[in-house]
Amino acid sequence: MVTAEKPALPGKLGQLGAVVEEALGRLLPPSSERPESVHRAMGYALTSPGKRLRPVLTLVVAEIFGLRQRRVLEIACAVEMVHASSLILDDLPCMDDAALRRGRETTHRRFGESVALLASFGLLNLAFATVAERGQELKMRRYGTEDMVHHLAAAIGSGGLIGGQALDLESRPEDLDLELMEYIHSHKTGALFLAAGELGAMAADARRRDLEVISRFAKNLGLAFQISDDLLDVLATSEETGKDSGQDEEKATFVKLLGVEGAQALASELLEFAVSSLDPLGRRADPLRQIALFVRDRGR
Amino acid sequence: MVTAEKPALPGKLGQLGAVVEEALGRLLPPSSERPESVHRAMGYALTSPGKRLRPVLTLVVAEIFGLRQRRVLEIACAVEMVHASSLILDDLPCMDDAALRRGRETTHRRFGESVALLASFGLLNLAFATVAERGQELKMRRYGTEDMVHHLAAAIGSGGLIGGQALDLESRPEDLDLELMEYIHSHKTGALFLAAGELGAMAADARRRDLEVISRFAKNLGLAFQISDDLLDVLATSEETGKDSGQDEEKATFVKLLGVEGAQALASELLEFAVSSLDPLGRRADPLRQIALFVRDRGR
Repeated sequence: MVTAEKPALPGKLGQLGAVVEEALGRLLPPSSERPESVHRAMGYALTSPGKRLRPVLTLVVAEIFGLRQRRVLEIACAVEMVHASSLILDDLPCMDDAALRRGRETTHRRFGESVALLASFGLLNLAFATVAERGQELKMRRYGTEDMVHHLAAAIGSGGLIGGQALDLESRPEDLDLELMEYIHSHKTGALFLAAGELGAMAADARRRDLEVISRFAKNLGLAFQISDDLLDVLATSEETGKDSGQDEEKATFVKLLGVEGAQALASELLEFAVSSLDPLGRRADPLRQIALFVRDRGR
Repeated sequence: MVTAEKPALPGKLGQLGAVVEEALGRLLPPSSERPESVHRAMGYALTSPGKRLRPVLTLVVAEIFGLRQRRVLEIACAVEMVHASSLILDDLPCMDDAALRRGRETTHRRFGESVALLASFGLLNLAFATVAERGQELKMRRYGTEDMVHHLAAAIGSGGLIGGQALDLESRPEDLDLELMEYIHSHKTGALFLAAGELGAMAADARRRDLEVISRFAKNLGLAFQISDDLLDVLATSEETGKDSGQDEEKATFVKLLGVEGAQALASELLEFAVSSLDPLGRRADPLRQIALFVRDRGR
């Protein structure tokens, strides 16, 4: 038997994850509506068990700058839609060819490749539509909805996670160096963490210099999270991660480059840097420090 | 030898197509920049020979409502990016499995499936980034950039061309009726024509009732264009269309349902309806009437 990815987010962060989970279901187009198969696949991919770490980051950041979570919930869900879209894509036969994700069959194994692919595009568009629609209601003074759209598109596009995925697929073991690894993972994972943090800060109309603090934190958190993922892949069984284990064997990972201890050390360093960048925000940034702790413990 | 899709847009419309063509090249990320392969594939797909009918529609509509073409050129290009993205997707092995498009190898045949797929996502995101960036500069009073993003996302999403593509793939010959056919093609093709027209009208800050006129025109034009495409597939050789000919043999088309003459009659009817909806705009809508004529002649 396979189970969902562990460990779950602790305490209040976990509760926020549950709030996101519930909202995701509401934002999906009904599966009784055409195209039924694609809508079912979108729902399958989006509501499969997960930590919801990225949207929780959006919620937590928005609250730090005084915006009630309820008002940014749909924007946070849009970040998760992008994430779910990218997971469908990554798992396809022409990419990682994965059978298992989040403890269940991957979307293309369940629905077929063409429906999975259309669901991936569908989730991406739903994310943009959601940000465009909900951004207007926030009445930000410092930012426009178009800034949110722009940051989200940049996080996904060829200068973001698509770029990371491309280099990840193409790079051979002999190309592996720290610069390339950092490029791959700061794009493949870091970029969406960055957008998740930024959208939360923009939604709450945070000052530009506070936005920069969040950007620095989120970027380093994302990279550390990816390293913890690589570590999990090596240290845990598929029953614990909910993914095919050892599927990184052929791929460029920090663990392969630096060894388990080296990767753990790098993750710690990135997290320390992330946490120290929060100093200007004082105690109100504590929930973000908690997220950093969660990521640190995850890769141990 | 294969050649580009014929016939080309006539006269001034053709010149506008050339202006679009030139701008598309400028908007692409340099192929010397990571991820190089994806950027090359994006360029290959986006700048392959084509009529540029959708972006020309955007330019023409904007000009009718008093906006200089130069100011809406990038928005028009975003529409073509979405179109190019959807063509890559449609041609993939798990979709139509096409070898030829616009007189050249399809993107996945040239670059491999994973790079083609990432290029398709890359173009889609570039489209959203472009609209978000350029929309701000237009200083519309009646609309926001978020309205443009929302209309574009709706045109692509599961309620738009993704929905049409899904039903197109799934429907068997025995399901074929006029309602289903209209659903498929008004979504698969009509939705992006609709967005192309709407984005032009919004960019020029057209009054709401004028926007509605354009919507009605563009929707019917798009459906008629799809019928003319089905007719071309039957009547022309692959040398003339630049696509695999007869590739619709297994698929639901208007020609299969209504015969050649019936399809031609339906296209004429839709175009008449499209053109008559332009009456409130008087003579200034003449360039749109010219586009309708072009589509009519194409399917004969």
